[in-house]
Amino acid sequence: MSHPNIAIVGATGAVGREMLDILHRRNFPCGRITCLASPRSAGQVIEHALGTFTVQATTPESFKDVQLALFSAGSGISKSLGPVAAAAGCVVVDNSSAFRMDPAIPLIVPEVNPHHIPAAWIGTNRAGKPGCILANPNCSTIIMLVAVHPLYQAFGVERAVISTYQAASGAGAMAMEELRDQTRDVLDGKPAQPKIFKEPYAFNLFSHNSALDPVTGLNVEEQKMILESHKIWGEDSVRITAMCIRVPVLRAHCESINLTLKRDVTVADLHAALAKAPGVTIVDDRANNIFPTPLKASGGQEVLVGRIRLDPSQTPGGLNALAAATEAKPARSRGVELFVSGDQLLKGAAQNAVQIAELIFR
Amino acid sequence: MSHPNIAIVGATGAVGREMLDILHRRNFPCGRITCLASPRSAGQVIEHALGTFTVQATTPESFKDVQLALFSAGSGISKSLGPVAAAAGCVVVDNSSAFRMDPAIPLIVPEVNPHHIPAAWIGTNRAGKPGCILANPNCSTIIMLVAVHPLYQAFGVERAVISTYQAASGAGAMAMEELRDQTRDVLDGKPAQPKIFKEPYAFNLFSHNSALDPVTGLNVEEQKMILESHKIWGEDSVRITAMCIRVPVLRAHCESINLTLKRDVTVADLHAALAKAPGVTIVDDRANNIFPTPLKASGGQEVLVGRIRLDPSQTPGGLNALAAATEAKPARSRGVELFVSGDQLLKGAAQNAVQIAELIFR
Repeated sequence: MSHPNIAIVGATGAVGREMLDILHRRNFPCGRITCLASPRSAGQVIEHALGTFTVQATTPESFKDVQLALFSAGSGISKSLGPVAAAAGCVVVDNSSAFRMDPAIPLIVPEVNPHHIPAAWIGTNRAGKPGCILANPNCSTIIMLVAVHPLYQAFGVERAVISTYQAASGAGAMAMEELRDQTRDVLDGKPAQPKIFKEPYAFNLFSHNSALDPVTGLNVEEQKMILESHKIWGEDSVRITAMCIRVPVLRAHCESINLTLKRDVTVADLHAALAKAPGVTIVDDRANNIFPTPLKASGGQEVLVGRIRLDPSQTPGGLNALAAATEAKPARSRGVELFVSGDQLLKGAAQNAVQIAELIFR
Repeated sequence: MSHPNIAIVGATGAVGREMLDILHRRNFPCGRITCLASPRSAGQVIEHALGTFTVQATTPESFKDVQLALFSAGSGISKSLGPVAAAAGCVVVDNSSAFRMDPAIPLIVPEVNPHHIPAAWIGTNRAGKPGCILANPNCSTIIMLVAVHPLYQAFGVERAVISTYQAASGAGAMAMEELRDQTRDVLDGKPAQPKIFKEPYAFNLFSHNSALDPVTGLNVEEQKMILESHKIWGEDSVRITAMCIRVPVLRAHCESINLTLKRDVTVADLHAALAKAPGVTIVDDRANNIFPTPLKASGGQEVLVGRIRLDPSQTPGGLNALAAATEAKPARSRGVELFVSGDQLLKGAAQNAVQIAELIFR
């Protein structure tokens, strides 16, 4: 078989728009590419280095002679058309939450659990092979795991406490537009006009807009970070909590991560584990106060990791003990802190989906 | 003695500008008010409900016949002129970091440790009494303690893990202007021009701009949150860590707070303790996703507390155990999470200083 024919479902959305780019940047072996979206976007023309594409309305017939379908059009479309595409023989990589917690469907971060993809699904020649569905995790989960998994492998993780700083892009292209428009209005002395988000967004931040469980008090985003991580690791011994917050940033998420490891480490141990980790770039210059930021992560494929340090609250003797360390006798602790940033539209969505496809087709 | 004469040192700065307002709003017993600043601001005229004030250059002679000096002009001015003002008989309330960790100087959050003020200092009639210096804590420390102290009192706190979302105002009026100017430039397609902060600020966030300890990796803001909290509580048994981050917000800080209490509590226990806490307003509506935000906190005198919940990572059985709770059998945990917001210029600075003065003069 030659290169797979590809359907991009939701091609006009914030994530969909990145799909062509990331296929191109990663030199993915593309056959014919079809850009699909809702009927109201049909007819739009997308000019791209990969070609000129006229957007077509997504229908159950869209997946004939397509080998790879990249879905990013919301949970409803994925639920209704994902199985149709798979039945037509497609490898479906679904960016929605529709199938993530389905025990029959692998949920993949390629740096963490590529082995969860059944060997029978893998191969460039899919002639005669049945279709399948793979799920792309939540963006905050992906970005967290790329940074934490190397420490999980090297030292074991008992507990993770995460606070997020999430960009507008996670809520789609219109949310990004809302942030820009509202901010201009506020600078011009006009009132902010909330549309997508209930809270004003210009120069403001707020608890993640997903629904809260009235019993536990965790919102859906926070639940995803816990449950998806456990599924991806294939075990639920890591005790996780998250506080998910939307900040007035356009397209890269940050996360403050506090870990309890299974054994004592030095900062050098952490650097060594992270330096060789796939998908991680260390940005950690204490002398010049240079650390990950959303702007540094935006447009890049790596998760930036910095503020790599020991946690005084988990170190006997606290801050004094950390300060008393020397090069000859470095401080050791099971408590570790990181500040990370990753592009929500790329590693948090389109890029991770394409990386999953690479595991199948390469 | 009639009402104290007041000198506001740094009257043209971001915090100084709030001093007149908050004296007025709190109905503080004001005698003559003198607005002091650097020589280059001298001659500026401030029109206010409390009167019309011509700004004067601060000199060692500025404190004659002044009973209360509110310093907010940076650490250098406080170090050089704070003791001069105290020697002239003033009660100095200093908003800089100059004296905070001086064992001889009380560091006060009125809701937490008013008893740290020597009884001999208190009294409206200060005739013949020597001057004194009191320190106003760091803004992030104040906002954290107003929310956490009620839980510390009711249940005990073993450990606190904090991630901050800090506004521009903490770095002064020019930093607020930088955020506005840069954001407008970026919206107009022009490059951001960093001045006060090294990192671009428009639609971006970054690790706090204070210097980092090269050995511990904690920046000065994070160190303050630990060391000042211990001084204010008068004991250092609470193990604290913080990740301090500057976000593109104008004047209110938020903090994600994860606590380990000394005993199990229910969410109702937390609400009960916080509902009666001075300086706290609970903003916690799970059904409608209404929680603290910087805009809700801006201009207000209270610390807003929400996302009040138990931490699945510190609850045996995790998220499932929390979800299985019923009204008759509520979940219990030593792990607790909060999301709080407070006005950095008011409760984080000017208002707390005036509240300290109230403890002396009322």
